[in-house]
Amino acid sequence: YDYDGPSMKTSVPGPRSQNVGAVNFFCNYEESRGNYLVDVDNNRMLDVYTQISSIPIGYNHPALLKLMANPNHLSTLVNRPALGILPPENFPDKLTESLLSVSPSGMTRVQTMACGSCSNENAYKAMFIWYRNKERGHNMPSDEDVSTCMINKAPGCPDLSILSFNGGFHGRTMGCLATTHSKAIHKLDVPSFDWPMAPFPRLQYPLEEFTRENAQEEARCLEETEDVIVKWRQKGNPVAGIVIEPIQAEGGDNHASPDFFKGLRNIARKHGCAFHVDEVQTGGGATGKYWAHEHWGMDDPADIVSFSKKLLTGGYYHKDELQPYRIFNTWMGDPSKNLLLAEVLNVIRRENLLEEVTRSGKALLNGLYDLQAQYPGILSRARGQGTFCAIDICDDATRNSILLKARDKGVLLGGCGDRSIRFRPALIFKEYHVHIFLNIFNDVLAEH
Amino acid sequence: YDYDGPSMKTSVPGPRSQNVGAVNFFCNYEESRGNYLVDVDNNRMLDVYTQISSIPIGYNHPALLKLMANPNHLSTLVNRPALGILPPENFPDKLTESLLSVSPSGMTRVQTMACGSCSNENAYKAMFIWYRNKERGHNMPSDEDVSTCMINKAPGCPDLSILSFNGGFHGRTMGCLATTHSKAIHKLDVPSFDWPMAPFPRLQYPLEEFTRENAQEEARCLEETEDVIVKWRQKGNPVAGIVIEPIQAEGGDNHASPDFFKGLRNIARKHGCAFHVDEVQTGGGATGKYWAHEHWGMDDPADIVSFSKKLLTGGYYHKDELQPYRIFNTWMGDPSKNLLLAEVLNVIRRENLLEEVTRSGKALLNGLYDLQAQYPGILSRARGQGTFCAIDICDDATRNSILLKARDKGVLLGGCGDRSIRFRPALIFKEYHVHIFLNIFNDVLAEH
Ligand code: FES
Repeated sequence: YDYDGPSMKTSVPGPRSQNVGAVNFFCNYEESRGNYLVDVDNNRMLDVYTQISSIPIGYNHPALLKLMANPNHLSTLVNRPALGILPPENFPDKLTESLLSVSPSGMTRVQTMACGSCSNENAYKAMFIWYRNKERGHNMPSDEDVSTCMINKAPGCPDLSILSFNGGFHGRTMGCLATTHSKAIHKLDVPSFDWPMAPFPRLQYPLEEFTRENAQEEARCLEETEDVIVKWRQKGNPVAGIVIEPIQAEGGDNHASPDFFKGLRNIARKHGCAFHVDEVQTGGGATGKYWAHEHWGMDDPADIVSFSKKLLTGGYYHKDELQPYRIFNTWMGDPSKNLLLAEVLNVIRRENLLEEVTRSGKALLNGLYDLQAQYPGILSRARGQGTFCAIDICDDATRNSILLKARDKGVLLGGCGDRSIRFRPALIFKEYHVHIFLNIFNDVLAEH
Repeated sequence: YDYDGPSMKTSVPGPRSQNVGAVNFFCNYEESRGNYLVDVDNNRMLDVYTQISSIPIGYNHPALLKLMANPNHLSTLVNRPALGILPPENFPDKLTESLLSVSPSGMTRVQTMACGSCSNENAYKAMFIWYRNKERGHNMPSDEDVSTCMINKAPGCPDLSILSFNGGFHGRTMGCLATTHSKAIHKLDVPSFDWPMAPFPRLQYPLEEFTRENAQEEARCLEETEDVIVKWRQKGNPVAGIVIEPIQAEGGDNHASPDFFKGLRNIARKHGCAFHVDEVQTGGGATGKYWAHEHWGMDDPADIVSFSKKLLTGGYYHKDELQPYRIFNTWMGDPSKNLLLAEVLNVIRRENLLEEVTRSGKALLNGLYDLQAQYPGILSRARGQGTFCAIDICDDATRNSILLKARDKGVLLGGCGDRSIRFRPALIFKEYHVHIFLNIFNDVLAEH
């Protein structure tokens, strides 16, 4: 059902996308298929950005169209329940078939939510509640706890913090935003919490060539993280949880080694902090595994793993200790999204998409290595896992010009960080799509 | 398509809903219709709670089933776009037909979101950005603004606050939660902001009988609100925005008069604070108008009006001055929900549902007055607008026992506040549904 290549009628945004304001261009989703996004001027672009990394198996996948055309599912589409109190009969089974069939190691529970932000906001709340329960032991909340929380004051609303990392991105609602440190424009003018930020390793690529330097850099970051935890405890605002992305995405596709994450997990354990791995952008298969943290090879990688985007629903997995009893909102997710997700997982299995991603990812990264050897003045730091790849451009202006030129030649890409281009194709991006992309990208670079 | 009455096979939760944990019971949404929710034990209950007030026109409305069965809409169901950058071709038209066709007075712009919490979180951010832009005048953010915001510090992350009201509820993500003051259990253990809370009027009902007392109480609350604004400015944490519900819902269905809201609007203007009316629970028709604030009769009721629940999508209307340019997330709403909403609005118009609500609401409130005269030891403070009604029960234990007994007799109700029962039927709740409800409620009360 996929198209066989890009097809451009106009530059983008074209005449029918005029007056777009903040939007890039208007799309014709009916005509879009597989890896190709079609716009209102009938330009057909190879989509290597996929709605900010949120389309798992391409546009209008026949399996999803068939699913939604099934009249048995109409009721799920028109009756959205308050899942926390009145779930549909089959909901626990649906979770077992879908989200729980890809549970991260050591986690047997999942709480659905509706987007990445509420997933993280509620994960943070679960960590705060867990931390305070631990502090209280078997005691009930005191009268003072209960009365002070109503007026936003300690001890009821305690001075507790979430530690996050420089360059991290965890969403834009106010709790999430206090842990986001990717771009000033995201945070400017919004009040925040006095929560600590630790340095994320700034590695040299290719990772294999700089193992010693990178190990040193990671050791430095781990040491500083531990210092920050101690410092915040001393100043009366202890770290209840640590949140980190397995690959920092918005912040510029920054990788770290399994050893770094193992070290961090140990630091969290040592200091009694919960460890939250945010897989909102990395989860769902793009790294060649369902979860990027699987590449760490740990039995007990985290206390909480949050997700959204390619998973279509939001939510988080958690260990038994992080009780969900006080986590609640009206909808608590959306069964119509779970329905789609269950079929997406079927397609991933049936079509061996994780293996495909691994294969395409190798071709993509090798292609980027070649281009970077060919254009050392423009390209550097090619990096990636699966098709979750990125490359740096010499400067921001050149980056933006390359993005626009690629778009006019029929390849849709996204930026991240100060001067990176990120590659976020769907899981159905095959080796021949990689070659279509590399040819066009090469043309764009050659013109520079 | 509606059933003609409740039909109970077992007590609820019945045998097939066993092991429900935190959930009330499991539902059979396929068999539910109109005002009736059917559970897995085939009990059929008149639903006067409607998934925490979020089902606009009942279960499995034929118009919605027909809409979702239309193959033209499959693409909208399977291709969820990043609306902020790549909207579908017809999206602006769809907004004009749906949300913008019911814009609050003085507002011509709407930003869609995905739930009540992100609607409010982003409304707060819009108010903070507006406030800081006003302070900066035509100047760009300073270097200090930009550098400090990255580490969560002022002036980049400024000491600014949102003023909210005792008993208010605006959601449970961390920004929203700092303005929520309904129940301790919502707030306990979660860090918060040092934001001010003002008293919400505690009126006597029926309102017509206590105009003088109520006016005094409202004057007191307005005065205290102004004091709080001055105090917070003096302590260096000025109020950028005021958020309030037209009827406090979770906090116990607390009403206030149009004069109170007019006074508050003036106070906001006088002190340079944005005025945000949270219609997440009140919006969508249950008060007999699309927006509860329409009952105030003002041309310029607010700077921001947020919504969700019965509107099926989330979002907020805003005045031109509250620029949306820096409000962004991956999905920015969900066109599949807009599609449903457009049809819901068609049904509301076609079936004159706002008039029906006004009529049913009168019957409901009069019925509650009668019952409260009959059972003065149990019932008091009957109140409401449209079908958005509530009544107080003598104590919490009796309230909960009444809720359970009513459920076992086939009426599903919800509590709110310390000891209120709230009525939140769908807009298709007709006068004869009111009588079915009143008869059963009478039976329950007679047994007490
Ligand atoms: S905050 Fe996640 S859907 Fe609203």
